[in-house]
Amino acid sequence: MIAEIIAIGSEMLTPYRQDSNSLFLTGRLNDLGISVAFKTVVGDNADNLTAVARTAISRADLAIFMGGLGPTQDDLTRESVAAALGISLKRDHAIVTEMYKRFAERRIHMPGNNAQQADVLEGAELLPNSRGSAPGQWLETSINEQPKIVVLLPGPPHELQEMWDQQCMYRLRALAPSAAIATRVLKVAMMGESAVDERTAPIYKKYPNVETTLLAGQGQVEFHLRASAATKEEAQAEVDRLAGELEDELEDAVFSSAGESLEEIVGYYLQMRNTKLAVAESCTGGMIAERITSVPGSSRYFLGGAVVYSNDLKTLFADIPPLMIEAHGAVSKEVALALAENIREICNADIGLGVTGVAGPGGGTEEKPVGLVYVAITNGLKQEVVQRRFFGDRDRIRRWASQQALDLVRRMLM
Amino acid sequence: MIAEIIAIGSEMLTPYRQDSNSLFLTGRLNDLGISVAFKTVVGDNADNLTAVARTAISRADLAIFMGGLGPTQDDLTRESVAAALGISLKRDHAIVTEMYKRFAERRIHMPGNNAQQADVLEGAELLPNSRGSAPGQWLETSINEQPKIVVLLPGPPHELQEMWDQQCMYRLRALAPSAAIATRVLKVAMMGESAVDERTAPIYKKYPNVETTLLAGQGQVEFHLRASAATKEEAQAEVDRLAGELEDELEDAVFSSAGESLEEIVGYYLQMRNTKLAVAESCTGGMIAERITSVPGSSRYFLGGAVVYSNDLKTLFADIPPLMIEAHGAVSKEVALALAENIREICNADIGLGVTGVAGPGGGTEEKPVGLVYVAITNGLKQEVVQRRFFGDRDRIRRWASQQALDLVRRMLM
Repeated sequence: MIAEIIAIGSEMLTPYRQDSNSLFLTGRLNDLGISVAFKTVVGDNADNLTAVARTAISRADLAIFMGGLGPTQDDLTRESVAAALGISLKRDHAIVTEMYKRFAERRIHMPGNNAQQADVLEGAELLPNSRGSAPGQWLETSINEQPKIVVLLPGPPHELQEMWDQQCMYRLRALAPSAAIATRVLKVAMMGESAVDERTAPIYKKYPNVETTLLAGQGQVEFHLRASAATKEEAQAEVDRLAGELEDELEDAVFSSAGESLEEIVGYYLQMRNTKLAVAESCTGGMIAERITSVPGSSRYFLGGAVVYSNDLKTLFADIPPLMIEAHGAVSKEVALALAENIREICNADIGLGVTGVAGPGGGTEEKPVGLVYVAITNGLKQEVVQRRFFGDRDRIRRWASQQALDLVRRMLM
Repeated sequence: MIAEIIAIGSEMLTPYRQDSNSLFLTGRLNDLGISVAFKTVVGDNADNLTAVARTAISRADLAIFMGGLGPTQDDLTRESVAAALGISLKRDHAIVTEMYKRFAERRIHMPGNNAQQADVLEGAELLPNSRGSAPGQWLETSINEQPKIVVLLPGPPHELQEMWDQQCMYRLRALAPSAAIATRVLKVAMMGESAVDERTAPIYKKYPNVETTLLAGQGQVEFHLRASAATKEEAQAEVDRLAGELEDELEDAVFSSAGESLEEIVGYYLQMRNTKLAVAESCTGGMIAERITSVPGSSRYFLGGAVVYSNDLKTLFADIPPLMIEAHGAVSKEVALALAENIREICNADIGLGVTGVAGPGGGTEEKPVGLVYVAITNGLKQEVVQRRFFGDRDRIRRWASQQALDLVRRMLM
């Protein structure tokens, strides 16, 4: 079964806004073994929309239209899809009566054009909207003896998602060729995409039935695995077998095997080991603390720390001797280690982190170039300091540095 | 002139990846007075791609294809567009020779399929790629006596953007109906979208020739204004007149009139007034410091501060008396003010900021619900504390709180 997703709205043809609903729908369709072959964006223009609908209905088995179902003159999806199918719209008077009632309850006069929301494609079922006023529509029909499914959904994501999951999934499951799908997400820290791919391509290529997608971010590579088979168990066994081989190859570089973020994993370890963390950040400027505290409940294991951006504050909050800065520079192994040691002691934490580096774009020298970062960790017994050179812009360098810091915490607790 | 943008690549039909090049191109096309009427995404499949190309070339005056120009078997754009146009491809042997040379210089054998990158649409010009190996193509032709422009661009954004700006803009400017366009961006802090719209809709509706788009984020609303007129001066005068009226209505809630971010504006004021800032953050957990230090050169006005997540650290780093926390609670006006006052004094800063609140989702009480936030500021002479109740999830509440803090700094320095 081939699907096309059509997003309707002139705002998505500006430089400022993008359709994001199609990512959600693609995930759900893939879960049923259905591929998306085309995505189209079209504005609130009846001629263009009708042309797009005609094309979509002819080339896809399933055409999903999103948006343009409201009460205004710009909402043209119903009539355009009807025109493309060569069928008529029928006003559902029971729905109109209900609308009048709802407006009356709120003691508001119902504007006349609201009634167009009750215009139903001939042969379609209305899909009630539990989170908004515009109902969706579900039509099963055929064109030249080819069965076709046409779905109209509201544009706002929270309305669309609820309607899809509650009312469309079970209908589609009954029609789609049965497929059992299993998925798995692995996340890898502090390796580049090409290094990960070089080591793992010989492995995942042995699994042609598992669709493997690599996604790279700053200091992170994700594997998205997906397999279909005759039964759910078989599909799951296949992705699990590949995931196991990938974990064997990459060993402890894999930090998550069920989709968790690095800050969630770090929080999980800290809480499990009843360990308290404190941080002293220079070049990351608060990013490490911000990431750790983005996890609900992080106050159970994160005490806080200091953003020691100026040299004076390195001395004031983390007891770094001015002479040490003079001798080695603020960006040095010595200062990073002292930041970690001292913030741990001062805050009465179990683990201390210290970070210093050159985030750029200015401030680099030949000896200490932009992207040079020192990250140190200590638990009082053992200490470690890592020297790294990151590339890219200021934001990218800071993200890599914060990822390195979180990964050191994870490795210390593993 | 009507444009269609076509993104080619199966990875953009997964739940994980999205075309973003079209936003860049839409902005550039709008600058020339050209609207985008359709956007299409299609996978690496010759039949589907040819069908999409045929549709695009028939309904648009300008069809821009992105991606699928590389050397692999998956790169099908050239042959599919040729098939849709009913023309042939000609191999440019001078280009092939150059390719062989480049490979030879690096002492690598050139795989044979690389030569397909020199296959040129009959009548097209090749666009050299200064940032990659796949050249683009520019074709002016006509179909049923309608002039058509067909452009092939590489998919990687840094290659596409360079090629567009250096080689396509001037070609298109010579062909596009001359239009003088002016744009303007205004940013508003700490007002909701509906409040901004209610106050400004009567104003911007008086300017039907200016296209006004409102974009809302956490604690921020942006106006994007765009006008076209006979001359650039006329268009500029029109957007400037509307911008002036909007600024008069919203007064000092407008913090930026040329697109700068709030952290850039705050940095600008701090530097201009030679003023040093320090912060003590509880619920925002480092987000304020992270935002301030995201601006290059922020070390000139930002000293740093403390992330006082636990009560002990509030005492340790910001001298908050435990009795004050006991009496008023950590989330209180008193603690916020003391955080601001004390961090200023301890760090020897000119301005001190203090933030405390309930970020949620847990930890709320009837008296102190999730979303309650106190933000305090002082410059030693005057002090101010703001009590706010924000709604939404943890990230949203923290973003609003950090926005409020930055906005207080801006207002104090204005």
